[in-house]
Amino acid sequence: MTPDTTPAELEQALADAASAAPALGASEPAVRAGWIRAVADALDAAADELVPVAMRESSLPEARLRGEVARSSGQLRMFADVLDEGSLLEVVIDTADPDAKPVPRPDLRRVLVPLGPVLVFAASNFPFAFSVCGGDTASALAAGCPVIVKAHPGHPELSVRTAEVMIEALRTAGAPAGTLGLIQGFDVGVTALKDPRITAAGFTGSVPAGKALHEIAVTRTEPIPFYGELGSLNPVFVTQAAVDARGKDIATGYVGSFTLGVGQFCTKPGLLFLPAGHGLQEQLAAATGGVAEAKMLNDRIQEGFTSGLDRLQKVEGIRVWSSGAATLLQTTVTELVARRDEILEECFGPVSIVVEYDGVDELKAAVEAFDGNLTATLHAEDADTELAGELFPLLTARAGRVLWNGWPTGVAVSWAQHHGGPFPSTVGSIHTSVGVTAARRFQRPVAYHDAPDAVLPAVLKDSNPAGISRRVNGTVTTGEVSR
Amino acid sequence: MTPDTTPAELEQALADAASAAPALGASEPAVRAGWIRAVADALDAAADELVPVAMRESSLPEARLRGEVARSSGQLRMFADVLDEGSLLEVVIDTADPDAKPVPRPDLRRVLVPLGPVLVFAASNFPFAFSVCGGDTASALAAGCPVIVKAHPGHPELSVRTAEVMIEALRTAGAPAGTLGLIQGFDVGVTALKDPRITAAGFTGSVPAGKALHEIAVTRTEPIPFYGELGSLNPVFVTQAAVDARGKDIATGYVGSFTLGVGQFCTKPGLLFLPAGHGLQEQLAAATGGVAEAKMLNDRIQEGFTSGLDRLQKVEGIRVWSSGAATLLQTTVTELVARRDEILEECFGPVSIVVEYDGVDELKAAVEAFDGNLTATLHAEDADTELAGELFPLLTARAGRVLWNGWPTGVAVSWAQHHGGPFPSTVGSIHTSVGVTAARRFQRPVAYHDAPDAVLPAVLKDSNPAGISRRVNGTVTTGEVSR
Repeated sequence: MTPDTTPAELEQALADAASAAPALGASEPAVRAGWIRAVADALDAAADELVPVAMRESSLPEARLRGEVARSSGQLRMFADVLDEGSLLEVVIDTADPDAKPVPRPDLRRVLVPLGPVLVFAASNFPFAFSVCGGDTASALAAGCPVIVKAHPGHPELSVRTAEVMIEALRTAGAPAGTLGLIQGFDVGVTALKDPRITAAGFTGSVPAGKALHEIAVTRTEPIPFYGELGSLNPVFVTQAAVDARGKDIATGYVGSFTLGVGQFCTKPGLLFLPAGHGLQEQLAAATGGVAEAKMLNDRIQEGFTSGLDRLQKVEGIRVWSSGAATLLQTTVTELVARRDEILEECFGPVSIVVEYDGVDELKAAVEAFDGNLTATLHAEDADTELAGELFPLLTARAGRVLWNGWPTGVAVSWAQHHGGPFPSTVGSIHTSVGVTAARRFQRPVAYHDAPDAVLPAVLKDSNPAGISRRVNGTVTTGEVSR
Repeated sequence: MTPDTTPAELEQALADAASAAPALGASEPAVRAGWIRAVADALDAAADELVPVAMRESSLPEARLRGEVARSSGQLRMFADVLDEGSLLEVVIDTADPDAKPVPRPDLRRVLVPLGPVLVFAASNFPFAFSVCGGDTASALAAGCPVIVKAHPGHPELSVRTAEVMIEALRTAGAPAGTLGLIQGFDVGVTALKDPRITAAGFTGSVPAGKALHEIAVTRTEPIPFYGELGSLNPVFVTQAAVDARGKDIATGYVGSFTLGVGQFCTKPGLLFLPAGHGLQEQLAAATGGVAEAKMLNDRIQEGFTSGLDRLQKVEGIRVWSSGAATLLQTTVTELVARRDEILEECFGPVSIVVEYDGVDELKAAVEAFDGNLTATLHAEDADTELAGELFPLLTARAGRVLWNGWPTGVAVSWAQHHGGPFPSTVGSIHTSVGVTAARRFQRPVAYHDAPDAVLPAVLKDSNPAGISRRVNGTVTTGEVSR
């Protein structure tokens, strides 16, 4: 058990972050990209040391954790690349137009600048990818913000060692002292969240904790943005044609997805909608029954799962199709609609519910029963194009990522990725926690009005010394600007 | 006095907006652009009727109000153009990469979709540009969101007539019924803000009202984004060299800017920092004394100004240099720092404070005395490049727009514009209320994962039928995509 950060240590962490902010914010993007790549390299180099610690603290298997390290370092490198390319800064230059109506237009140059120190509440279920070296940290560093991570108590030693590796890499690469800090303890995190030096916060965790922290962040004397990923059911809808064409593959894929990582994914498919008479019960039950016993992340998660599963099994209209290391439940759309709030409550862990629907109208009613989710999935065939065309807008209205014939677990890190969704899956549905624009959560625009080249930041100068991508008078270019 | 919207009328407005949302959200961007241009044309065509109503209700002069109509219709057309061009949707396409590490990457296509019905709290000081047909409405419509405007009681008849003109234009152009609605009454606005059908809100007004509404929006059962522009002091800093080179022009420009529109601009320069011994007192006082008497927007604003001015004049260390239709006060940096909270409180109306500084260190201390502002301005000469280089980062940390040798009143509408700033000038400093990315406040990303062309929205299809600008595998292009 790692002791909580003391008040003096917290004060030091906050002071260090605040003092790092101006230098970090003023750093040239290409220089910052170098610091971030140094962190990525250090993480990869430390994998042999860090992964065993993570295995011990999280009970997750080695291959998965090595993949997470690679994903985290790859994500850092993606942000470094986009800093070099320039799009992360969203530079827009409109040169002066003395003939503009109703008034002449000045030379205006817009760039995104960092907000300042960011507080990141780490998650337990991804000890690397959503923890100290995860997406919130990577995107905030790319934005030019110092980061203080509130460690998750599920993997305290890993958190400390990961932070040490990253801090040493930043120091060696020449980043300002205070660029990264780590704190421990629930109350310490709340105190930090209230501190005026903290300018934004990221969170991944439970709905109650996320709601409570959100309220603190937005009702402070100086409200700050709070980006919280809270919980998601990730429904999967399967058409009759898809069952007919590849029902067995769907059954296998589904069980694999909802039991992946002991069901401890925010994108775990919590419900699978199948047409009545699908004939897959036996296979689904057998596949679920064949899942190997595995330890959950920690005792608290295990207790939460046990009581959540117990609650769910007692809901009227819920039947047990298979139980053991993983649990498969069953109900119908009629019953789901009648007891919507009881059935549509996330149970974090290796359980999922098959929901049987009777005809297309019930399928649509099922889609419409959902609030916001991170993902929604449709399994369909080419013959379903008309039905899919009706369902896609309904799914889009309820999810941040809409999948076709896939499984929602596993979130590729790329330009186009979106990881977020309407409330309650996230607070702040207009933002993503994965992908390039995740940095935008920690940046604000500044426009310079008629400023001469000599005082402008390098990225806004006429000559575009770093050759970054900029929108000049409406067109994206890496060229120079003439006034 | 227009009566408040009744509960039945409010329910109708909310129901209409909610029922318009799916059709509006599904509209092709080019079609939506057409609806928006129809509104712009209708506004221009109605200017002869609307401007006299605005003159009577706001006491603002005709030329200014005609300029505002042109600015508002021009802004609508800018959004229509960017819808056609496509950047407003931020389409990003990453085609599948089966060789990606650590796992194969799916085909991912991201687009911004509308949040849903938006509530806009109109301001009094721009009866067109920040009211019914203003930037919040224009950007929300461009995003594809139905809008309900809570009319400002300062110009009730204008609000009703503007809404009628816009609604008729939308109807004739073929937009869904319920795309725009208007409600009246303070409590009615609060009730609307709490309604689950409202998905975001924009506000321009006072700090206390903005804070109260913000708290309601973010602590609802389902919290929603609230974009509030609250108040700003817009300091102007003048170097010795600038005084030497063009002190008289600066004095004239300053008085013109702080008295423009009877000082009723959110970007009014509230303080002018001059080096001690500037020798401009006589000219500044004379220019201020020469300002013609003009009626303020309404009695409530007038009362607020009278009491605010009275309060400010009584602050120790504040001296009156000129009073009459406009008021010029004077103090020093030493006194400002000693009574910071009393002096740095916005007084909306034709008053400003000359603050004298003694040397560069006091000038820097003056800059550092400020919290967040919409704008900060530096008047300097080429010889000041080193000093300006030190001041620019300090100004950038405190403002959303940094001006060089200009005046902050007047906000050009263009791609690069930013109108916003750190708290308390706005709640939500990462967003702008003017410029293209204002629409982003009312959009959320959705990523489609491996979806076939047949079910994708047109803007994401391989063939790019509308020829919009999209980022494909990292590069911006209007071309087709091959899978």
